[in-house]
Amino acid sequence: MTQDTETLARAVTSGDRRALSRAITLAESTRPDHRAAARALLRVLATAERDAMRIGLSGTPGVGKSTFTEAFGMRLVEAGKRVAVLAVDPSSARSGGSILGDKTRMERLSRAPEAFIRPSPARSSLGGVARRTRDAILICEAAGFDVILVETVGVGQSETMVADMTDLFLLLLAPAGGDELQGVKRGIMEIADLILVNKADGDLAATATRTCADYAGALRLLRRRPQDPEGFPAAMTCSAVTGAGLEQAWEAMCRLDAWRREGGHLTARRRAQAMAALDQEIREGLLTRFRAAPAVTARLPALAEGVRNGHLTPEDAAEQALDLFVAGEKPLPRP
Amino acid sequence: MTQDTETLARAVTSGDRRALSRAITLAESTRPDHRAAARALLRVLATAERDAMRIGLSGTPGVGKSTFTEAFGMRLVEAGKRVAVLAVDPSSARSGGSILGDKTRMERLSRAPEAFIRPSPARSSLGGVARRTRDAILICEAAGFDVILVETVGVGQSETMVADMTDLFLLLLAPAGGDELQGVKRGIMEIADLILVNKADGDLAATATRTCADYAGALRLLRRRPQDPEGFPAAMTCSAVTGAGLEQAWEAMCRLDAWRREGGHLTARRRAQAMAALDQEIREGLLTRFRAAPAVTARLPALAEGVRNGHLTPEDAAEQALDLFVAGEKPLPRP
Repeated sequence: MTQDTETLARAVTSGDRRALSRAITLAESTRPDHRAAARALLRVLATAERDAMRIGLSGTPGVGKSTFTEAFGMRLVEAGKRVAVLAVDPSSARSGGSILGDKTRMERLSRAPEAFIRPSPARSSLGGVARRTRDAILICEAAGFDVILVETVGVGQSETMVADMTDLFLLLLAPAGGDELQGVKRGIMEIADLILVNKADGDLAATATRTCADYAGALRLLRRRPQDPEGFPAAMTCSAVTGAGLEQAWEAMCRLDAWRREGGHLTARRRAQAMAALDQEIREGLLTRFRAAPAVTARLPALAEGVRNGHLTPEDAAEQALDLFVAGEKPLPRP
Repeated sequence: MTQDTETLARAVTSGDRRALSRAITLAESTRPDHRAAARALLRVLATAERDAMRIGLSGTPGVGKSTFTEAFGMRLVEAGKRVAVLAVDPSSARSGGSILGDKTRMERLSRAPEAFIRPSPARSSLGGVARRTRDAILICEAAGFDVILVETVGVGQSETMVADMTDLFLLLLAPAGGDELQGVKRGIMEIADLILVNKADGDLAATATRTCADYAGALRLLRRRPQDPEGFPAAMTCSAVTGAGLEQAWEAMCRLDAWRREGGHLTARRRAQAMAALDQEIREGLLTRFRAAPAVTARLPALAEGVRNGHLTPEDAAEQALDLFVAGEKPLPRP
C-alpha cells in the first residue's frame, strides 16, 4: 500500500469529509491503478471495526422519498446520530448522470454537519453500481456514520440489489385504493422488512390508514421468515411532512435490528452478502480480464463477425475466444 | 466430429422424431463431452438452411396458455404446418422438474404427428435455460418445423429471455377491468408484438372486447418501433375454446413476419440475437473454466472462508482467485 492510501484511510476514519468524498470517488473509478488503490483502502478500512445500521429504502416515484429521507434523516441527526445517504440509480447509467437535485431536495439534511449525502454513480452496469455502492457503504461505516441509508428508485432489479447489501429494507408507499395493492410486485413485498405508507396527513390520512391495513393483511399472508421476530415484516403509516409516525418507524427498525443482532441473523446475513459479493467480483473480474487480454482483443472482432454472418455458431466462437484467452495468458512456446 | 454426431445430424434433418429428442437431450447436457458433441451437432445443423417462424408466447397463470397453444397449434397443423412447442420455465430449476402435465393438457397436439412438444429443461440458471432453449430452437428448425412456439410462464426475466430468441412475441391476457391494465409490467408491453385477450367467449366476450380496446389504447402510447409496420404492436381478442380470432391472429403474425423479412428487420434481429448469444456463451464459459481450474478448486474454499470470516475483503479474495486462475493455466516455471 502506498503512503497516499494510508493517509487517506486515516483521514477517512478520523472523520475528514473531503477525504470521505475522495475515498468514494476512488472506489467509483474503473481505472486499474485506482481499483488497486481502492482495494488497499478497503482492506485498511475493514479493520476500523465500526458498525452502522445499513438501511435500504425504495419507493415508487412520487411517493415522497426525498422528503421522507430529509425528515427521517433530520430526526436521526437530532437524536445524535450521524447519517449517510447513498443514492443508487442504475438508470442513471443510461441517462449519463446521477439524480439531479438530490441535495437541493434535502436542503436541511445536506447542510447538517452530521449528515453526508452522496448521489448515485453513473455506471454502465447494475454490477458496477452494486460494487461501488457496497464499497461506499463500507467507507461511510469506517468514517463513523451510525446509520447508512441506501436509497433506490424502484427500477428493475435495483431493489433486490439494495436489499442484498443492507441490514433491513424499507418500502415507502403512497396511500391508494385497495386495487392498487396488486401493483406492488410480490418479489418486492417479500424483501421488505417495513412498509411505510407515507402522506398520512390531511385529506389522505384516512386512506393511508386503510392502505396500511391492506398491506398489513397482505404481509400476514407471506410465509414467516426465520430472521423476523413476531410482528415483522410490519406495515405502518407516516408523514414526512408532519413527522407523524417517524419516531415509531425508527423504533420498529431498532427493535428489528436488535432482535436480529442478538439471534445471530445479522452476522449470517452479512456473511451471505460478503459471499455474494465475492461471487460477483469474480464474474466481473473474469470479464474484465477477458476483455483486456491482447489475444482476445486481436481476434474477437473477427469471431464476432463470423457469428453475425452466420459462418460461426455462437457456441463455437465463444469456445475459440475462450481458448485464445487461456492460451494468451501463457508465455509463447519456444521455437 | 464423430461418426455418431454425423449420423444424429442426418437423422434429425430427415425428420426422425427419436433423433430429434435425443439431439435436444444432448444439447441440454452439461457434461463436457456432451457439450462438445452438441456444438459439433449444431455446427452441422446450422447448414441445413431451413427457416421457421419463431414465436414467443407468454401469459399470466390461468390465462389459458396451454389451451391456447393446443388450439392454435392444431389450427396450424390443419393448415399443413409442422409445429414444435418448447416450454421454458426457469422456476422449474428450483422445483427440480419441468412443468408437469404439459402434454396431457395438450392432448390433441401431443398426438399429432406434425407436432412436437418438449417440456422445459430443469436447469440451475436462467443462462443455462437460455442456452438450451436457443439450441432446441435451432435443432427443431433443422428438423423441418415451420413454426416454433416458445412458451414461457411469466416469471422474472423469462419473457425478455424468450423475446430475445424469437422473431415475434405474443402476450396472452385475460379479460379484466381497466384497473388491472397497470398490472402488466411496462417492460412486457414494450416487447409484445401482439397482445391477445383470450377467453373472448360466453359471459366474458364483452369484457374481452373492452379489455382489448384498453390495451390497444395503451399500445398506441408506446413509441413506434422501426421494426413495426403500421398498426403494430396490435391487440386482438380470441377464444382458445371456440377458436374465434385464432385465424385473424395467425394472419396478423404472418403479415408482421412478411413485413419484417422484406425490410431486413428479421435478419437484423437474428444477427443481434446471435451476438447476444455469443456474449452470454463467453460469460458462462469463463465461469465454467474458472470453476474447473485445479488451482481455483484447490484454493477458492479457503479464500471464501476468509471472506466469510471477514479476514479478506471480497475484492481481494476475487483478485487472488483470478490470479490463480490465470497462473494455473500457465505451465510451471522451470526451476
